[in-house]
Amino acid sequence: MTDTIVIFGASGDLTSRKLIPALYSMFAKKRLAKTTRIVGVSRSKFEHQQWRDSLRETTAKFSPKLFDAETWDQFSQHVFYQPGDIKSAEDFTALAGFLSEIEDTPADGRLYYLSTMPQLYEEAIRQLGAAGLADDSDGYRRVIIEKPFGTDLKSARKLNESIHQVFREDQIYRIDHYLGKETVQNIFAMRFGNTIFEPLWNRNYVDHVQITVAEEVVIGRRAGYYDTSGILRDMFQNHLLQLMMITAMEPPAKYDSTMNRDEKVKVLHSIRPMTGGDFANHTVRGQYDGYLDEEGVPANSQTETFAALKLYCDTWRWKNVPFYLRSGKGLSCRTTQIVIQFRQVPHMLFGEVGKSPDRNRLVIQVQPAEGIQIHFQTKVPDAGMKTRTSTLDFNFCRNGGSMPDAYQRLLMDAISGDASLFARSDEVELAWGIIDPIIEAWRSPAAPPLFRYPAGFWGPTESTDWMAKQKREWFDVCPVIG
Amino acid sequence: MTDTIVIFGASGDLTSRKLIPALYSMFAKKRLAKTTRIVGVSRSKFEHQQWRDSLRETTAKFSPKLFDAETWDQFSQHVFYQPGDIKSAEDFTALAGFLSEIEDTPADGRLYYLSTMPQLYEEAIRQLGAAGLADDSDGYRRVIIEKPFGTDLKSARKLNESIHQVFREDQIYRIDHYLGKETVQNIFAMRFGNTIFEPLWNRNYVDHVQITVAEEVVIGRRAGYYDTSGILRDMFQNHLLQLMMITAMEPPAKYDSTMNRDEKVKVLHSIRPMTGGDFANHTVRGQYDGYLDEEGVPANSQTETFAALKLYCDTWRWKNVPFYLRSGKGLSCRTTQIVIQFRQVPHMLFGEVGKSPDRNRLVIQVQPAEGIQIHFQTKVPDAGMKTRTSTLDFNFCRNGGSMPDAYQRLLMDAISGDASLFARSDEVELAWGIIDPIIEAWRSPAAPPLFRYPAGFWGPTESTDWMAKQKREWFDVCPVIG
Repeated sequence: MTDTIVIFGASGDLTSRKLIPALYSMFAKKRLAKTTRIVGVSRSKFEHQQWRDSLRETTAKFSPKLFDAETWDQFSQHVFYQPGDIKSAEDFTALAGFLSEIEDTPADGRLYYLSTMPQLYEEAIRQLGAAGLADDSDGYRRVIIEKPFGTDLKSARKLNESIHQVFREDQIYRIDHYLGKETVQNIFAMRFGNTIFEPLWNRNYVDHVQITVAEEVVIGRRAGYYDTSGILRDMFQNHLLQLMMITAMEPPAKYDSTMNRDEKVKVLHSIRPMTGGDFANHTVRGQYDGYLDEEGVPANSQTETFAALKLYCDTWRWKNVPFYLRSGKGLSCRTTQIVIQFRQVPHMLFGEVGKSPDRNRLVIQVQPAEGIQIHFQTKVPDAGMKTRTSTLDFNFCRNGGSMPDAYQRLLMDAISGDASLFARSDEVELAWGIIDPIIEAWRSPAAPPLFRYPAGFWGPTESTDWMAKQKREWFDVCPVIG
Repeated sequence: MTDTIVIFGASGDLTSRKLIPALYSMFAKKRLAKTTRIVGVSRSKFEHQQWRDSLRETTAKFSPKLFDAETWDQFSQHVFYQPGDIKSAEDFTALAGFLSEIEDTPADGRLYYLSTMPQLYEEAIRQLGAAGLADDSDGYRRVIIEKPFGTDLKSARKLNESIHQVFREDQIYRIDHYLGKETVQNIFAMRFGNTIFEPLWNRNYVDHVQITVAEEVVIGRRAGYYDTSGILRDMFQNHLLQLMMITAMEPPAKYDSTMNRDEKVKVLHSIRPMTGGDFANHTVRGQYDGYLDEEGVPANSQTETFAALKLYCDTWRWKNVPFYLRSGKGLSCRTTQIVIQFRQVPHMLFGEVGKSPDRNRLVIQVQPAEGIQIHFQTKVPDAGMKTRTSTLDFNFCRNGGSMPDAYQRLLMDAISGDASLFARSDEVELAWGIIDPIIEAWRSPAAPPLFRYPAGFWGPTESTDWMAKQKREWFDVCPVIG
């Protein structure tokens, strides 16, 4: 039995930058069956060889370290192109014909990758169903759907309903490439593969958690999409809530897709809904100076490019431990990191009277640095019993290793039918249910002010002040890489 | 008020190698009052300047980094020599006269350092008393006593009794230079200055503790002393039990000399006495090949150069958690380290069936490496959910710092009257009470065999087997230094 991977939106950026290099790399590592077929579909007219040539060029460009001419030639023999318009039933019939033609038997499995514009997802799914392409009575039929999955709870629900008319939930793989990152999966390994972290991982020892996804870039030419989306839809509903779920979840009974996602969903269920003054008191909104001058941004845009949220999980483990989620564009540096900020020692034996030493901190660096640090107190040599902050340090790539791209892992999992690292329908809808009321409140007359910040800082100074008022401090550190 | 430090045994090795360099270094760092006087006493006849010249040479040789001619000249003006025989009452009267002569007022404090042969301690103390030199009605009078403090419980008790006829317990500073080491004091800082270690520091999470003091050297010319002492007296009664106390103790209410030592003494009280078969089952004895050929060792010597003990603390915290203490001469390398070996995770989510991943381990490197490592599981990149052992690493001297010698700290504490890092009478006696029965059993007909081992290994192979039978493993790793 052989697999076929059909990519809709084949002429798009994601295909040439990520999907084809990932598939090629899997092939080179012999992790993709030699006979796996890759079929690109989009409206452009290409011959098979034309598309192969164009992908050869982009793969060599985007993945120069991996590229090897001979391996590519072997790989590209299994790459095909089939022109098609998502809106055309005939094109889907033609696609069905083409697939039967190149496939060996009806038992061959198929993975459909929707990398089109999000507005086309429902139509694409409908056409797949109508053309009989979702029928998995012989071989498997799975569909990978790129983000964004809806723009709010209502649209996500509608999208789920449409998809469920064609595909069962176990055929659906909603991708969040953050979950494909090695350093994110390592949070599972760290929490549940070690004895020493889990006993500390609760309200008895943790003061609060900080999850920061900082981007240095500004929106550039993405104004058309970005200005209607804003940072809560673009980053929080998916990536930041995913990181929060993995940080906050209970250990599953088994590491499988059902139990794992059940535990993650429980976190979303436990997030305390904001009400009344919470929307002003537990959030900070920001927009970088110059956003209004970006091409395509309306002059009076109130779209946030920075947000900080304070969320609580109402569970035995986390009751009253704030989870601070923060993301922004135009910040000091690009970094994704999770900080577990521990409480102060219960009884102070050392140090100057009235001066608290730094509290312990566990920093999980997700990207671009890939490592873990524990900040702890050690004795200052030659100075009585004074202590100072020192670092226990671990770096994933210290010994020259390198991390595979997130898409490789996710494609591999989808081919083998492991949905652990993909978002389930309830997960997506619950996440929108958390984000929607905040977006709504921010659009209401009672919205908190939209603070400005100069690009290159950690967001508006009001964000720092907000933490200071809570007697806490953002961990504003640009990671050292390598 | 000025201090006078009187060193008995002034012509000995310790004085020139450790005490004078430590005092000089304290002077250079301006931690010693400029006017502090140092008086050497021994039987040799020296003029002040002769002794100064000889110390100048040895200090420059043993502490070349610290030595500075100008500073030395300032320092040495306060260094004096007074010939004297411990056995001569007249010499003590002469010493008393000399001290009054060089001291400004009767209120000047005095620290007597007994660096003589241990057989002379009682006599020296008696003479100090008889000459009125212990009388602290004007200025303080303290006495530092070098190890060994007795050779068994009986002799230690007798020594304590003799000393207490002259000095009160609070005037007595029994030195164990291990307690002066920065990395040993850092165990206090680590345990009681951080939130994250103490919750794990108990039987719920710790499988066992290993304390290893390994020496690469063999006994060389010390046979006369060593063969009558053996490793239990030489290393366990003091250094290893001290390290165990600091590792196992409860947090004191205050970090002061009384409360600190109270907690340490409680550990000794809690050590489960060995009975019956324990002496054979909970101990391993070894002697390196070639020991019998060392000059001065009797051909049939049964003296141990290696020992491993399994001890238990019968407390809520440590019940049934073994503390493995091990020390030897002629081992693989010189290293002192404490290993907290954590239990296996309660429920395994990852990894191959039937194959347990490495358990978490905290390694405190005391010397010559000075650092801390946590061995933990991380995800193997690009390989599903396999995990492997990685290291969180902290090195005290990473940024080029250097550690002061243990004697500096201990001398400084004794001058300022802080006895926290010195052994109290009950501590010393309890420690002998633990070691004596083992020595006795090892001399009895029911003694376990004395295993041979080639120099350059981690003791006899029977030591490894002994651990394996308990489903445990020594952490036999030579530290990487720097």
